[in-house]
Amino acid sequence: MAATGGAGAAHPTSPVAPGQALDRAACAALDARDPLADQRALFHLPEDLFYLDGNSLGPLPHAVGERVRRVLSEEWGDGLIRSWNTAGWIDLPARVGARIAPLIGAAADEVIVADSTSLNLFKLLAAALRLRPERRVILSQTGNFPTDLYMAQGLVALLDAGYELRTLPHDEIVGALDEDVAVLMLTHVDYHSGRMYDMAAVTEAAHAAGALMLWDLAHSAGAVPVDLGACSADLAVGCGYKYLNGGPGAPAFLFVRRDLQPRVEQPLTGWLGHAAPFEFTPDYVPGPGMIRHLCGTPPVLSLAALDAALALWSEVDLAALRAKSVAMCELFIALVERECAGHGLRLASPRAAAERGSQVCFAHPEGYAIVQALIDRGVIGDFRTPDILRFGFTPLYLRYVDVFDAVAILREVMETRAWDEPRFKARAAVT
Amino acid sequence: MAATGGAGAAHPTSPVAPGQALDRAACAALDARDPLADQRALFHLPEDLFYLDGNSLGPLPHAVGERVRRVLSEEWGDGLIRSWNTAGWIDLPARVGARIAPLIGAAADEVIVADSTSLNLFKLLAAALRLRPERRVILSQTGNFPTDLYMAQGLVALLDAGYELRTLPHDEIVGALDEDVAVLMLTHVDYHSGRMYDMAAVTEAAHAAGALMLWDLAHSAGAVPVDLGACSADLAVGCGYKYLNGGPGAPAFLFVRRDLQPRVEQPLTGWLGHAAPFEFTPDYVPGPGMIRHLCGTPPVLSLAALDAALALWSEVDLAALRAKSVAMCELFIALVERECAGHGLRLASPRAAAERGSQVCFAHPEGYAIVQALIDRGVIGDFRTPDILRFGFTPLYLRYVDVFDAVAILREVMETRAWDEPRFKARAAVT
Repeated sequence: MAATGGAGAAHPTSPVAPGQALDRAACAALDARDPLADQRALFHLPEDLFYLDGNSLGPLPHAVGERVRRVLSEEWGDGLIRSWNTAGWIDLPARVGARIAPLIGAAADEVIVADSTSLNLFKLLAAALRLRPERRVILSQTGNFPTDLYMAQGLVALLDAGYELRTLPHDEIVGALDEDVAVLMLTHVDYHSGRMYDMAAVTEAAHAAGALMLWDLAHSAGAVPVDLGACSADLAVGCGYKYLNGGPGAPAFLFVRRDLQPRVEQPLTGWLGHAAPFEFTPDYVPGPGMIRHLCGTPPVLSLAALDAALALWSEVDLAALRAKSVAMCELFIALVERECAGHGLRLASPRAAAERGSQVCFAHPEGYAIVQALIDRGVIGDFRTPDILRFGFTPLYLRYVDVFDAVAILREVMETRAWDEPRFKARAAVT
Repeated sequence: MAATGGAGAAHPTSPVAPGQALDRAACAALDARDPLADQRALFHLPEDLFYLDGNSLGPLPHAVGERVRRVLSEEWGDGLIRSWNTAGWIDLPARVGARIAPLIGAAADEVIVADSTSLNLFKLLAAALRLRPERRVILSQTGNFPTDLYMAQGLVALLDAGYELRTLPHDEIVGALDEDVAVLMLTHVDYHSGRMYDMAAVTEAAHAAGALMLWDLAHSAGAVPVDLGACSADLAVGCGYKYLNGGPGAPAFLFVRRDLQPRVEQPLTGWLGHAAPFEFTPDYVPGPGMIRHLCGTPPVLSLAALDAALALWSEVDLAALRAKSVAMCELFIALVERECAGHGLRLASPRAAAERGSQVCFAHPEGYAIVQALIDRGVIGDFRTPDILRFGFTPLYLRYVDVFDAVAILREVMETRAWDEPRFKARAAVT
């Protein structure tokens, strides 16, 4: 895993000052003045691993291990059923939501944690159609994350009354907003390319057309600045297990703008969304505010893990987070294009940082095998069909030297065609 | 907490032999020959606690603590995203379902674990209506557990095409099965009274009327014999955190009879229910068998906890489990009626063991305060509105002497009117 160094002039898009060599020492210098450098110690990070996949599953914060052990032994073990009251389990969905709120420009009472991103999309899409009863179209992007489209398809098929999911390419979305569109559902940062929508402009366009705006923040929360409040977004969902580091399959969140909340009625009307669940009344009455978006009993171990993971964000400067994210992505692009030139890797993310989330993708026909060869060498990224190598950059625990060293390994893989082995071409269940 | 003893003749419904004194020594003798006695050591049980609430939240099995610690440190901490393949996270929903199958008379490939009981009810009710397109009624029981009714109400309101949830009292259900009923949804053991349906007879009646049969096994799985296969039940759901001891808010399960599986299409079509989730195709295609009932990414910590909790059932003789459950319930009824006579406690569960699950309820106008005074003395039961004291009997870790001692405390509470304090009358968030 030796670093390759190199003493060429700084690439125009790298964070290294012009005229300075883009080498490992320059990266170490960036780390030395990184205002987020202390955060790394809060995570369990295996040695000799370059983890560029925090956008699929964030690593384990030490605080989560401690919290879950306490939930097991003290809250569940000793407290048993009493812990719904004494340990505050019953309020966890709202408390965890309140921790997420400042990361997405929301008020504490505009966010709650429940179920999965998929289920929360179903809830809010169904609610949106009820708010625009004279309209029949859910508009979304071709190539949006599949579960977003699948949940909309499931809803439309269930309703079976002329409803339609319409999808269009990124650049045609705004132009397609018309009086048929009840809700525009978009993923703010695309899982595939990392392309980021201009949230304020798109929300404004949706509103101008009379449509509701539903943002999927799976690849945004904890990664890029989001200000739902400033752009008056109506609805949003997002994921707990990516940049929020809540653990595998951590519960997801929902946002509803406060003034809309009393009118938003979702159809998955489970008992914990009821106004008075322990009255056990025969008819459903939606609870106040965001409570009505709860459904069944939440998985407390996973919910407590997410709660503990979110505690560290109170110390994080979100402007510094975005600055480091941009700098790492720029550095990665510059290094890959210099070190791996001639090996067929083509940038598949927007080149302009302002249009990009906290990930960088390159395309290559042998993308799957290259990602497996990288994983074999301790550089963890994702493959995304058909030909995408996806690398997530997570400023809380990655260092600039990690970026440098990871590219050195990528160069070795490309130069030696290390990916060209049958074991790297056999597809795993999860890619 | 001194035992009150007593040397009267055995109550006719107690497990103590006729002519033998119904005293603590007789209970200790029952414990001494209990074939399930070894199971108690597998659980974390706080001292000086009589936990008669395993039907709300089962206690912590030691194996769960060990498993969750390993998932945290090794699978999430060290394995990170790789654990979806290397630790088999992706197959956990089916593997955990296969562990539940023998407890409910199902084949391994007829059960899967996903989401919550509420959400699974929604999936299967919607699927059932599609299978009986000419019928418009969901039939259920007045006073069924609220979330069952609420989810049906949410579905019916969403469909808005003449669908109807019809509820009737327990004794009028079978007679109300007609050609309008698409699906009969019943909770096998009533959460409130403990009354148990004759599963075979009711399922047969539903089928004779051309309706599908959906059983909620929340208070059955791990508590009473269930043989879905023998009675050709169509659909079922159940809970992981009661008698299965999977932890607070543990994921729930679904059952679909194998021959129905290819025709059962549920509307919450998330990506992990897709036939090929990692192909990221634009259109939803339901996965084979029970896979299509998955939706979003499952909460792995909570799912692994349930998996570990279920491992102990492979050593449990289910006939012995039921025999001990019946014996404990009979003992409890006999003791309460003898020790607490004259204090206004009225048996609110069926007196016949064959019509009762693994719980016993008494009604009392001061039920709430009595339950709080009991909890204050280490006897944990539930209050259920309006006047029900509910006690669950869980043969894996309760002893006959625990039943005896708990009743002694109940007698003390009733004789001294210990419940008559303001602190016992203030309602908590969760009751």
